[in-house]
Amino acid sequence: MKILGLDSSGLVASVAVVEDNELIAEYTTNYKKTHSQTLLPMLDAVRNLIELDLDTVDAIAVASGPGSFTGLRIGSATAKGLGLALQKPLVEVPTLEGLAWNLYGSERIVCPLMDARRNQVYTAAYEFLPSGQDFRLHTVIPRSPMDIGEILELLSRLGREVVFLGDGVPVYQENICRYGSLSSFFAGPGNNRQRAASIAALGAVYYAEGRIVTAAEHRPEYLRKSQAEQDAEKNGA
Amino acid sequence: MKILGLDSSGLVASVAVVEDNELIAEYTTNYKKTHSQTLLPMLDAVRNLIELDLDTVDAIAVASGPGSFTGLRIGSATAKGLGLALQKPLVEVPTLEGLAWNLYGSERIVCPLMDARRNQVYTAAYEFLPSGQDFRLHTVIPRSPMDIGEILELLSRLGREVVFLGDGVPVYQENICRYGSLSSFFAGPGNNRQRAASIAALGAVYYAEGRIVTAAEHRPEYLRKSQAEQDAEKNGA
Repeated sequence: MKILGLDSSGLVASVAVVEDNELIAEYTTNYKKTHSQTLLPMLDAVRNLIELDLDTVDAIAVASGPGSFTGLRIGSATAKGLGLALQKPLVEVPTLEGLAWNLYGSERIVCPLMDARRNQVYTAAYEFLPSGQDFRLHTVIPRSPMDIGEILELLSRLGREVVFLGDGVPVYQENICRYGSLSSFFAGPGNNRQRAASIAALGAVYYAEGRIVTAAEHRPEYLRKSQAEQDAEKNGA
Repeated sequence: MKILGLDSSGLVASVAVVEDNELIAEYTTNYKKTHSQTLLPMLDAVRNLIELDLDTVDAIAVASGPGSFTGLRIGSATAKGLGLALQKPLVEVPTLEGLAWNLYGSERIVCPLMDARRNQVYTAAYEFLPSGQDFRLHTVIPRSPMDIGEILELLSRLGREVVFLGDGVPVYQENICRYGSLSSFFAGPGNNRQRAASIAALGAVYYAEGRIVTAAEHRPEYLRKSQAEQDAEKNGA
């Protein structure tokens, strides 16, 4: 089984190919350039380097949100375009689950924090449950936009060690460390941001479970309305 | 602090840039092409995409062995060339420590297995010890070429859960699973092979500790003699 993974939900742009539980290629940048300038050239570079015939891919897994509105749209548009042209299904991998999958097998509670501005984070909490010699991802706190204080309170009630990752960590690291009743750790630089390898690897699990959509069906999941939509509602527009 | 990481010790070729505990870029392929064809073009692609001025790099971290003889020589030659031209120090990161660093923070014993053919592996065992909110790598079994049975015996005596990774896993997975007294797990596809992100991230730790060498001083560490050298010795040459 060969899965192409794409993640452009945050500042990171990332492309990966996973085949039969092996990472064949991954190209990730975490840089100010816009994803419209980077994602497709990166995919093209990977395709050339590993001589990938895109027709041999079984599905396209995409980080389906939450994340930056523009980033998600570029990732979704790219995945939809590829799916339509190649007549391949898409696998929607929630961004927070993809982030958690970076720490596959961790014995701690895994809490991805995506900075959503205005003191809020997109967050959730997961644990890895052994399933034979593999692990499956189990949701402990469902994904939602939340105040940072709220998620820390929910986590502290679990009484477990927690490992944090995501672009919310540098923003809220002080809050986390100051939160007395929480035993907290932080993922290292190799695994603390979005990775298409995780989108592809978890996408392979979901694909095997039949959790696919067509290119036409796929829509990113924003988790909250854009600032413009909120303003329009407030103004009764 | 900005560290360029290179790993071409196995089938994987990987290039990464880590700056102040953040991964800026990583490009990894696990494909049949020879590293002499891939490593420099990948570095060049990364350099262009993140507009990297190589003069701003503090050090070049390289997977220093063990590994494939040709792969190690290409990685070392590339690192030496860059270090000499840019007048930057090198950081030698043992390949097995770099592999272990993929699982930064794991609570299990981490055992990298690199296939060394003839029923042997290059291996070691590590654990992550908390050091404030970070972790440091502690050697439990020092790196050495070993028969697969020998390392499994040593691990089982530790009485701890063990997570395996590296290209020796697909070769010896059956032996591991059949080994009754061992509670074994396996890293996922995103972290089960060499990653330059880990070489750069662990390289940054070593750089901060002053563990640097000059380009002229650096030599890869093969851990055992090449087949040609062994044959020559046997024939009294």
